[in-house]
Amino acid sequence: MAARRRKATTQISRLAHRASGTAAANRMVPEETPVAFSFAGTTHAVMMASPADFEDFALGFSLTEGIIADRQEIEAIEVEDHGAGIDIQIRLKDQANTRFEARRRRLAGPVGCGLCGIESIEEAMRSVDAVGSSKLTLKAHDIIRSVKLLSKVQPLHAETGAVHAAGFYIPGKGVVMAREDVGRHNALDKLAGALAKADIDGASGAVVVTSRVSVEMVQKTAAIGAAFIIAVSAPTALAIRTAEEAGMTLVALVRGNDFDIFTHPERLVSGVAKHVA
Amino acid sequence: MAARRRKATTQISRLAHRASGTAAANRMVPEETPVAFSFAGTTHAVMMASPADFEDFALGFSLTEGIIADRQEIEAIEVEDHGAGIDIQIRLKDQANTRFEARRRRLAGPVGCGLCGIESIEEAMRSVDAVGSSKLTLKAHDIIRSVKLLSKVQPLHAETGAVHAAGFYIPGKGVVMAREDVGRHNALDKLAGALAKADIDGASGAVVVTSRVSVEMVQKTAAIGAAFIIAVSAPTALAIRTAEEAGMTLVALVRGNDFDIFTHPERLVSGVAKHVA
Repeated sequence: MAARRRKATTQISRLAHRASGTAAANRMVPEETPVAFSFAGTTHAVMMASPADFEDFALGFSLTEGIIADRQEIEAIEVEDHGAGIDIQIRLKDQANTRFEARRRRLAGPVGCGLCGIESIEEAMRSVDAVGSSKLTLKAHDIIRSVKLLSKVQPLHAETGAVHAAGFYIPGKGVVMAREDVGRHNALDKLAGALAKADIDGASGAVVVTSRVSVEMVQKTAAIGAAFIIAVSAPTALAIRTAEEAGMTLVALVRGNDFDIFTHPERLVSGVAKHVA
Repeated sequence: MAARRRKATTQISRLAHRASGTAAANRMVPEETPVAFSFAGTTHAVMMASPADFEDFALGFSLTEGIIADRQEIEAIEVEDHGAGIDIQIRLKDQANTRFEARRRRLAGPVGCGLCGIESIEEAMRSVDAVGSSKLTLKAHDIIRSVKLLSKVQPLHAETGAVHAAGFYIPGKGVVMAREDVGRHNALDKLAGALAKADIDGASGAVVVTSRVSVEMVQKTAAIGAAFIIAVSAPTALAIRTAEEAGMTLVALVRGNDFDIFTHPERLVSGVAKHVA
């Protein structure tokens, strides 16, 4: 079954209980659908995601999970809609395919999905590429502006108030790309894919997210090659340690004109560093 | 290595950029650690989670993912701290072990984690047990009170402002159990485990969560046996359809004294139904 266009939101009727009484009223809610990624013919992961931007999602996931090093390693992406969910078959070119199958054999144990706990933990904690090659610096003004501009390109969130967004901010250009999803990791993967497809260099700008920052958000931002992650909500301790080691500037809790700098403040110039106590 | 006690929060220093200037100041942030669940000797899943309540997490995950039907099917839970993460070995009793290995063989393809996309999607969309057996009804007062009471038993959130909670509310008794985690699904799994350990019947109360409601939150609430899920944030369309089919009352967007009823309003009596237009 070929992929038909799916709606990312649905109008439903619910009872609104208010001080004035309870009445039926419509509301837009985000859709959510299982999306399976298959590489070399077998499924690698299944995620609940917003049914939109499937090719960006597949390309971005392949990049941020380290399955491919660049988008040229993908032979084809086929998106199949099975009603209950979306199956995305990703065909890798020879070298990437060989590497992927070797990795799978290494991780697979004798009886199926046999990955011992320690190996799984090491896989989850994989080292992050240093982002030291990016020469980008930002001003306080950029931090505040990046979050404000992202808020203007969130159509699903405007409709539902219930999805996350990830955007890419370049100083002087604004938010040049943005993607939304019910899952914050998915939104970032979709952004990664959209940036790669548009040949936008990750080192040229900052990743901006509406969510909290987990270690996986830092790992994915490093895979994009961005030296900044700017977030509306708070980071975890592990995300902070990982950003510190990767040389990434982690700015979070951006609220109005206030924000907190958790790692590598040296990339913030003018209007920030000079005030540091 | 035996499990040592880990801290669920860490104090870090960051630069706070405010109108008055930028200064270094301390802040508490939540810890996050990879937790691997191994059944029958091989790893089944790895999650990033708050390092607390590991046995509740393992028991709850086993229950809500349908690996066991009740807690008597677990022979032993061994929690090992490997520094980089936590490996939880769950030993199942004979019948559950046989069932688990059959399921794993069925899902595993010829080359390892070989699960075709369609099977993975069906697994993700597994049917949900109807919760029709619960005779529980609630009043508008209970909905509002359950969320207020949950907010009083969130020590990690009070410290960090950055973790989710899941609680269990019984009318007349209040929130009798609550668990927190950086991940909303983990918080609910930990709650499920804590309820099972305390022999609290899921049909006797309502699940209350601080987060949005995805389909997985509805699936896990159904596995607990609760006929209500009450959430601070919004549900997805798939979560609403799944709750509708399962006979579960989904109440969300509880803000102050206002809330929205998305499915099965018949379980809400007095102060709600009488106002329905």
